[in-house]
Amino acid sequence: MGISMSASVSPLAPTDYATLPAIEGLRIATAAAGIKYKGRTDVLMMVLDTPASIAGVFTRSKCPSAPVDFCRANLKGGSVRAIVVNSGNANAFTGRRGRETTAMTAVAAAEAVGCRSGEVFLASTGVIGEPLDAAKFSHLLAGMAEDATGERWRDAADAIMTTDTYPKLATRAVAIDGVTVTLNGIAKGAGMIAPDMATMLSFLATDAPLPAATLQAMLSAAVEPSFNSVTVDSDTSTSDTLLLVATGAAAARGCPEITDIADVRLEDFRAALADMLLDLARQVARDGEGARHEIQVTVEGAVSDASAKAIALSIANSPLVKTAVAGEDANWGRVVMAVGKAGEPADRDRLTISFGDVRVALNGERDPDYSEAAAAAVMQRPEVPIYVALGLGTGRWTVYSCDLTKEYVEINGDYRS
Amino acid sequence: MGISMSASVSPLAPTDYATLPAIEGLRIATAAAGIKYKGRTDVLMMVLDTPASIAGVFTRSKCPSAPVDFCRANLKGGSVRAIVVNSGNANAFTGRRGRETTAMTAVAAAEAVGCRSGEVFLASTGVIGEPLDAAKFSHLLAGMAEDATGERWRDAADAIMTTDTYPKLATRAVAIDGVTVTLNGIAKGAGMIAPDMATMLSFLATDAPLPAATLQAMLSAAVEPSFNSVTVDSDTSTSDTLLLVATGAAAARGCPEITDIADVRLEDFRAALADMLLDLARQVARDGEGARHEIQVTVEGAVSDASAKAIALSIANSPLVKTAVAGEDANWGRVVMAVGKAGEPADRDRLTISFGDVRVALNGERDPDYSEAAAAAVMQRPEVPIYVALGLGTGRWTVYSCDLTKEYVEINGDYRS
Repeated sequence: MGISMSASVSPLAPTDYATLPAIEGLRIATAAAGIKYKGRTDVLMMVLDTPASIAGVFTRSKCPSAPVDFCRANLKGGSVRAIVVNSGNANAFTGRRGRETTAMTAVAAAEAVGCRSGEVFLASTGVIGEPLDAAKFSHLLAGMAEDATGERWRDAADAIMTTDTYPKLATRAVAIDGVTVTLNGIAKGAGMIAPDMATMLSFLATDAPLPAATLQAMLSAAVEPSFNSVTVDSDTSTSDTLLLVATGAAAARGCPEITDIADVRLEDFRAALADMLLDLARQVARDGEGARHEIQVTVEGAVSDASAKAIALSIANSPLVKTAVAGEDANWGRVVMAVGKAGEPADRDRLTISFGDVRVALNGERDPDYSEAAAAAVMQRPEVPIYVALGLGTGRWTVYSCDLTKEYVEINGDYRS
Repeated sequence: MGISMSASVSPLAPTDYATLPAIEGLRIATAAAGIKYKGRTDVLMMVLDTPASIAGVFTRSKCPSAPVDFCRANLKGGSVRAIVVNSGNANAFTGRRGRETTAMTAVAAAEAVGCRSGEVFLASTGVIGEPLDAAKFSHLLAGMAEDATGERWRDAADAIMTTDTYPKLATRAVAIDGVTVTLNGIAKGAGMIAPDMATMLSFLATDAPLPAATLQAMLSAAVEPSFNSVTVDSDTSTSDTLLLVATGAAAARGCPEITDIADVRLEDFRAALADMLLDLARQVARDGEGARHEIQVTVEGAVSDASAKAIALSIANSPLVKTAVAGEDANWGRVVMAVGKAGEPADRDRLTISFGDVRVALNGERDPDYSEAAAAAVMQRPEVPIYVALGLGTGRWTVYSCDLTKEYVEINGDYRS
């Protein structure tokens, strides 16, 4: 979240961006409406020429944005003809006016593509509490729907950025019963990112012919180890929205419509979806505001997976761990602290901690063979893996995060000005 | 926690420090043992010439330090003759050697004052995971016990500092049944400070003749709205220790020994204890690493006090709220976010938010009469009060914290070097 583009691209940015093929049945347009930003696009419209299936996961915030409320209501229908996204204003905590904005935007989108408002989905990202004037961009939607083409995924990823320093894109080709389908996704971060919800904005699409209920089951499952295992700053947005659309166009090429989520023919698709979500989620973590290192925290030997996740999040969200990584300091004492504060079962005297392949602590003490130089070398890598073995059970989880730098403070100490 | 003294004193430091009178029956000595720091004191010894009552509250970390384990065991006896504290090394996550260090230190202290090891209490603060060599300071204890005098409270507060930029001291004079007794306290912060335990190190003493069980009940109750309502960085230390000693010397002046904690004659003492603990806790928050503003978050109208506290902590621990305060930005949208992420009952459309006396949001929207200039003026104060009214019930709590600045990142990105 944020309103000004960062001057420099994160050192953790991909060396090149994925090129996403068109998804048959889905067209994309972007526009520069000047909602907040100047000299860049800030509106994205995705058009489904015929009704497509849709699934979604949203923030668990008790103070959700107006578009989140709007999407939740429409998701019951399971059908989508248009998605409209704006950056620069979150339309969150905007009361009655916020609801008027979503209604007006949806009517304009529905008229533009010839559908009901109930088949429109909306997302907004940016500053909270400022009224969003739909008139700034609703008049553009008819033209956007007309001009939209299938290839503009990179444009789409660009238009939804806020303080992101690079666009997040991913694509997978995967077979369902021998027919290759495409799975595309885009996402945006870059602060106010934490699990316990879907986190940030992300829009996925496939040409597979999957009904909404099947999509929803697969999406909800895939979110847990990916977007729900990413944290930048522990702060949960009011606006987090993840939508997955299936146009079904691959049916014309013989792809079967599968409703049983246990059907083995969905296994590869399910794996590709999980893999792509993790890819996008990690791209978000690596573009966390001010990030200079990705942190990968793996906790194993916990009493359960849930306990492992709680401890991993305690480590990944600890300001003292995050600043130590920023300082490239293998400060495992702070990892001990974060294990201890998680409130989950842990036995100090069984703890083993490693940075990368360098074991620094063993059975509740500094490893006698510990090499500070070797640990320091790990800390200088772009990705810093932290492993904690509790020795209590078989629970295991990995959480992805980034370090806490002065740039984070700078970006967020000057947000609205 | 930290190993180097900050170059500059916090702008939130008191303009002058409390001068603490002697507590009859308690003598103090400090020494420079060179455990980690050079050119300053790093060992504190408090000597009780006759057995005194003692109460304690400790970290809830699952990975407590060796001194915390040691104190917890001795607290069952309820009697103290010596307290030994060192700064520069926490003796945490030090395994068997850590236990040998506490045992050796306790034997030396017991010999120095002529008591059992069970009447010795220990605390250590500083880096985690480094073995602490008791031989560095145990040989000093006999001389310290001999030289100790009653007036050295300021020396005591200085000796236990780590990254603190100023010593924390407080004193109260209060009557029990018409006899005036003294209550003194010192504390140290300044990072790895969060509730869900006693937080940091703090040592209190009184000449009131109160038995250990009475002391413990009053201390445990007074900790909740004070030390357990302070957070600097949400990180819970392995070493947090709060001890309260009662020498009983005031009995000679006619002060009654009161065992019933419901006795009305204890009311003023109880209030003074609570007030002093809050004073010390706020001194700790105001000296949070890199702090430039104190944040006072009050949540009212919650479904319960516990719910109000959880929401207040969510706000006070939010990196986005803390960086906004650092930037003197009245970014109430982030307060909305932090209310929403707390997971506690909240109704977005009933929320009212104020910074100081400036109401910025009302009934789920920006206050139509909101003045950015007036809100900005509040943000420039050393103390920034944030009020949230939920409109659901009568639950209320206040949490004390500080802002998140580049200096925090700088201090903690360079900790061990």
